[in-house]
Amino acid sequence: MTETNTPAAPTRGPADHEVRDQIVVAATEHFSRYGYEKTTVSDLAKAIGFSKAYIYKFFESKQAIGELICVNCLRQIEVEVAAAIADAKLPPDKLRRLFKASTEASLRLFVQDRKLYEIAASAASERWQAVIAYEERFQALLRELLQEGRQSGDFERKTPLDEAVMSIQLVMRPYLNPLLLQHSLDSTDQAPTLLASLVLRSLSP
Amino acid sequence: MTETNTPAAPTRGPADHEVRDQIVVAATEHFSRYGYEKTTVSDLAKAIGFSKAYIYKFFESKQAIGELICVNCLRQIEVEVAAAIADAKLPPDKLRRLFKASTEASLRLFVQDRKLYEIAASAASERWQAVIAYEERFQALLRELLQEGRQSGDFERKTPLDEAVMSIQLVMRPYLNPLLLQHSLDSTDQAPTLLASLVLRSLSP
Repeated sequence: MTETNTPAAPTRGPADHEVRDQIVVAATEHFSRYGYEKTTVSDLAKAIGFSKAYIYKFFESKQAIGELICVNCLRQIEVEVAAAIADAKLPPDKLRRLFKASTEASLRLFVQDRKLYEIAASAASERWQAVIAYEERFQALLRELLQEGRQSGDFERKTPLDEAVMSIQLVMRPYLNPLLLQHSLDSTDQAPTLLASLVLRSLSP
Repeated sequence: MTETNTPAAPTRGPADHEVRDQIVVAATEHFSRYGYEKTTVSDLAKAIGFSKAYIYKFFESKQAIGELICVNCLRQIEVEVAAAIADAKLPPDKLRRLFKASTEASLRLFVQDRKLYEIAASAASERWQAVIAYEERFQALLRELLQEGRQSGDFERKTPLDEAVMSIQLVMRPYLNPLLLQHSLDSTDQAPTLLASLVLRSLSP
């Protein structure tokens, strides 16, 4: 994930971020057809019509490209979850929507879109930085939501906040982590509702 | 899983169930070295020193042998869980022990004992009869425990019993199903305690 900070030779070509975007779009397309694991940077270069060296000018490795695709994908999930929560007023309703929207977005992006599954699976099993940061932001969102509910009197206050956050994250894990999600497909319809209800019962004052 | 019910020719050899046991023991040993998926009934016959036809006299397929190994393994988990619960008096304590003992037994039998993992994984993904029956018995145990706690006044009675049972089963799934368990190893230490506490909060009257 290094940026080329050294000034490039004067050029009238596209800006760096445009080339990076172009590579990411082409790589996403290529990975979707031939798989992430099997593709090398040479394959990618040939397919895009760039030299391998030119791609390495923008990305230090295949994983660096994969990470950017992964970052985009995780950001998309967060945007959808935020939109789903924004409509709700009360903390319990927000929690229900959090379960539902995050399961649905993960399902669509990780599983139904097979081109992203392989990258998401590598990211999750190798614990890429993008995944760790995503999980931390998810945890922060959950913490914020619980604090809001504790202040409004909707949620109990006896359980240490850290413990409540951590245990709810464990409950949601099979529907957020692509490695578990692929083996949870028979419960993605019912689970968000059932589990949100169970968690809300556990939070009742 | 067919039994050879036709009377065999008069013989002073071992009883059928002894031969079946002998095949299962040898097969477990063989699968552990060479893997379940890769091994054929011919390989197995050669390794045990039986003819292929003789093995087919007792088992209709490799899966039938795998199912018996799987049944033994699941029975072992149930024995350990029952023993762990038997020591406890109060329903909440029983539930804690159910979480802990079933996670530990699944971990040891499915994951640490690599020879069983491959069979357990096939059993879980192909939903063998042994797995379905095991899940049903697990559900029945959970239902019994909840009813006991409702009668003793330890657990709330508002939530429909079916819903409570189903949602708790979903919470425990990552630690019981070998396909999910293999991706949950970083949380098997803490999760049983944290999740049992969350579930007990959800059950408080």
